[in-house]
Amino acid sequence: MEIPVIRDVLEESNARAQENRAIFDRHNVFVINMMSSPGAGKTTILQKTIPIIKDRGINCAVIEGDITSTIDSYLLKPLGIPIVQANTEPFGGDCHVGSHLVQAALNHIDLSDIRILFIENIGNLVCPAEFYLGEDHKVVVLSLPEGEDKPLKYPLMFRECHLCLLSKMDLKPHLDIDLYLIKSNIRKINGGLDIIPVSAKTGEGLSEWIDWLVNRISPL
Amino acid sequence: MEIPVIRDVLEESNARAQENRAIFDRHNVFVINMMSSPGAGKTTILQKTIPIIKDRGINCAVIEGDITSTIDSYLLKPLGIPIVQANTEPFGGDCHVGSHLVQAALNHIDLSDIRILFIENIGNLVCPAEFYLGEDHKVVVLSLPEGEDKPLKYPLMFRECHLCLLSKMDLKPHLDIDLYLIKSNIRKINGGLDIIPVSAKTGEGLSEWIDWLVNRISPL
Repeated sequence: MEIPVIRDVLEESNARAQENRAIFDRHNVFVINMMSSPGAGKTTILQKTIPIIKDRGINCAVIEGDITSTIDSYLLKPLGIPIVQANTEPFGGDCHVGSHLVQAALNHIDLSDIRILFIENIGNLVCPAEFYLGEDHKVVVLSLPEGEDKPLKYPLMFRECHLCLLSKMDLKPHLDIDLYLIKSNIRKINGGLDIIPVSAKTGEGLSEWIDWLVNRISPL
Repeated sequence: MEIPVIRDVLEESNARAQENRAIFDRHNVFVINMMSSPGAGKTTILQKTIPIIKDRGINCAVIEGDITSTIDSYLLKPLGIPIVQANTEPFGGDCHVGSHLVQAALNHIDLSDIRILFIENIGNLVCPAEFYLGEDHKVVVLSLPEGEDKPLKYPLMFRECHLCLLSKMDLKPHLDIDLYLIKSNIRKINGGLDIIPVSAKTGEGLSEWIDWLVNRISPL
């Protein structure tokens, strides 16, 4: 009995994602689905990334996924860009942002002059990887304190993503961590995954990450 | 159609958990369900905790939950205690350890001389909190690099647990983190949650955590 229901849910989810995709295409918006463990630094990276992108004359918007709370939206509010808080709690406290929730959020954003839309997913290295939201690219943020073995233990996430930001590089001198081993574990799971080490604190890698983004925007 | 199915799954899950509980009671085993974000340090804490408990003449066993891989089981193997790797992948790559998986694992452990059984759940601050496995206590490990806001953003986990181990205390001098704010955020969600700051690296807090455990074991 369970299997057909799960299939229905996934089909429903993909149908909403395709509708989102059509909306993004119509407005020529490039969409990033950012995922990570809790506390890996997605919001902090956006806080540092968005002002630089704005300075390059590119307009951004953010859909802030969370189970509950509006903490991250308020952190990003001073950036002066369109932000929609998308909480899964009224939808049952889901552990991932669903395509229906993105669709509901899109009703609150005027996409007409937006070039990049960031969807900050819920902090979870498992479930969010399973759901297509209509995005162009999935990006996983892996923070150094999480250790070298995460790609091997959460392979779907690293298989689904196009870029891995290795965050909190500023902590490297204080951790017993082998950067080469992290990278080789990532490559074992997904040989084509781009990897950019970053630190929101020191600014390391931010320009490389922003180039990665901007180079992928289609011309107007 | 979906709601009755979800109810069935939860009822089924709780029925298996009650059966596990009966097995634990019959063998007088004290069971800890350890949960956290990926890479918060559950395995490292067990690596340091179990030898000390063994030295006190208390036998332990571990059920190692993971989606895939046997990395953590092999890390714990040198401890010379019964370990069962419980991967959710053959069960569909679930994002949490289920009570049926614990039951399957129990077939491989002789509980007759075990006093403490640790179930190391999958690294995930969301879904594992929803499922009772038959344990005595739920323990959440929150690592300092994850930031102060996690209790507010993942409230169910902090509501369900009896103890929070604040891990990676050795990193505190290198983080912009307010320990008082973490504690007050935890208290906002669950005023009764015990909090013990620990570092597997320096040994800070380990004896307090082990006392917390040992004081809760019922006499033979």
